[in-house]
Amino acid sequence: MRFEVSILGSNGAVPLAGRHSSAHFLSSEATDVLIDCGEGTQMRLQAAGHGLGRVEVILITHLHGDHFFGLPGLITSLALTGRTAPLRIVSPPGLREKIAPLLELDRWQLPFPLTFVPHAARAYGLLTTTGDLEIFSFPLRHRISTNGYLVRERAREPNILKEQVRALAIPWQEIADIKAGADYTTPDGRRVPNAELLAPASPPRSYAYCSDTVYFPELASYVRGVDLLYHEATFLHDMAEEAREKGHSTAHEAAVTARAAGAGTLILGHFSSRYPQVNDHEAEARAIFPQSYAARDLYRYGVPHVGRDAQK
Amino acid sequence: MRFEVSILGSNGAVPLAGRHSSAHFLSSEATDVLIDCGEGTQMRLQAAGHGLGRVEVILITHLHGDHFFGLPGLITSLALTGRTAPLRIVSPPGLREKIAPLLELDRWQLPFPLTFVPHAARAYGLLTTTGDLEIFSFPLRHRISTNGYLVRERAREPNILKEQVRALAIPWQEIADIKAGADYTTPDGRRVPNAELLAPASPPRSYAYCSDTVYFPELASYVRGVDLLYHEATFLHDMAEEAREKGHSTAHEAAVTARAAGAGTLILGHFSSRYPQVNDHEAEARAIFPQSYAARDLYRYGVPHVGRDAQK
Repeated sequence: MRFEVSILGSNGAVPLAGRHSSAHFLSSEATDVLIDCGEGTQMRLQAAGHGLGRVEVILITHLHGDHFFGLPGLITSLALTGRTAPLRIVSPPGLREKIAPLLELDRWQLPFPLTFVPHAARAYGLLTTTGDLEIFSFPLRHRISTNGYLVRERAREPNILKEQVRALAIPWQEIADIKAGADYTTPDGRRVPNAELLAPASPPRSYAYCSDTVYFPELASYVRGVDLLYHEATFLHDMAEEAREKGHSTAHEAAVTARAAGAGTLILGHFSSRYPQVNDHEAEARAIFPQSYAARDLYRYGVPHVGRDAQK
Repeated sequence: MRFEVSILGSNGAVPLAGRHSSAHFLSSEATDVLIDCGEGTQMRLQAAGHGLGRVEVILITHLHGDHFFGLPGLITSLALTGRTAPLRIVSPPGLREKIAPLLELDRWQLPFPLTFVPHAARAYGLLTTTGDLEIFSFPLRHRISTNGYLVRERAREPNILKEQVRALAIPWQEIADIKAGADYTTPDGRRVPNAELLAPASPPRSYAYCSDTVYFPELASYVRGVDLLYHEATFLHDMAEEAREKGHSTAHEAAVTARAAGAGTLILGHFSSRYPQVNDHEAEARAIFPQSYAARDLYRYGVPHVGRDAQK
């Protein structure tokens, strides 16, 4: 079951040739979600081999240009290439007002329904669903209103144990009841408890996107137990003061949050252009949280099932 | 003496991963000029090894997104990286209104003076000068108001012939007068005509940018004798009708204009995404105008001096 993230851009405010502005593409079994859309995202999508055909929702964290300046071009290209499916864009309030003049949205009709959903997260909560995914939002602390997002697979039904179905010759008419929790009684009157008939489904996998934000302890509670945590690490920790002043985090702080949250894996990103190499970010974070990786543009990170599936 | 053009994007409306939206970077001995600024131009500039440090003027042909959606990110990055030098952006009217909300220009003060110069060319004429360059504008015929631009080196002073200075032992005090056209009289009264003392300077080189436009015969008169002609060729000629309907040209038509203008070299660009390869564009144009080349992203085209310098 697919659940993987393509990093389309890992750089901070001023993009570099090989490290573009922020954008992630999350791909699950049933749908795709685009998170942030810095300048050039449409070209990065092509370079990564992705299209927006399955995307129903774009999530924008905040209205700084390096997180949304790719939207006008993306929307234009969708219009020119014949999209008809509806598209929702969730962001803090004000996005439509900023890009409507560029796209002349009040003058022309796009060939697909485009809905802007103004949303400033004030607490952790379910935002929406799309395909097989549930999307939660929560507040980050940056210079302007900023949302973090957590995307989780919907809980799956438990799996019926096929060997039991075969051994007990359970009629197919009984399966739905058993899946819903019923025990099974054999024709000769023996009662088989439900727990012996079902195996729990793989726990839903999750991914969280935290950029841009200063370090704050409550963030760990929003992303508790997340499998894959993307957290900005604009600076190294020797610039912790500048990070705080500018509304950003250090690699060390990202790792502290990952550890406190009990995350599976931490990916660092949104690097300042002052760092041509980001090995030091990785090392700094690993000292706190060993499963830390510096994001690389155009890399895909698959999220494994923990527990039984991970042991396969 | 440098006079070369970097193609930062050669594709039409919907960019491809390797063929970006329109942008050219013209570099002369004394200055640089950016012409059009499609999405991702700032990353393409970095990939090509160029900066905007010497750029005083950006020329935008028209207000379709693939020709200017890179401006907000570019301007933001200039602001973030400490530019203080003034910058002018020439375009058909309406550009400021389109991007001011995105950049919050009415709320924030940029750290450098940014001037929008609304200009809809109605005839061929001198638009402005920058460094050692003169910039001319002329009307193209597209679906909306569109300017073509021609950039030419300023005329240089003729060169004084050093062998004559030496042979005649001309005192340095006389040089300025001679350069201004005076004859020279030797101490023994012999008059040496000016023409024997000066060699004409290399003729100014020129480059013209014609995108987007339908074919129209008058265009050749605007770019008469240009050394390097960049002309859009969105389609091949079997789609001439569609080209005209959409306000575009074919490779054949671009070549007809280049031939009629007596251009030195033709570069074709602004290719439709329907053509993954553009060899056929090159072949179609060469049948009419042999010195035709399909633009390639990130290639540089030097403009040679014709005549004596070219023979070096």
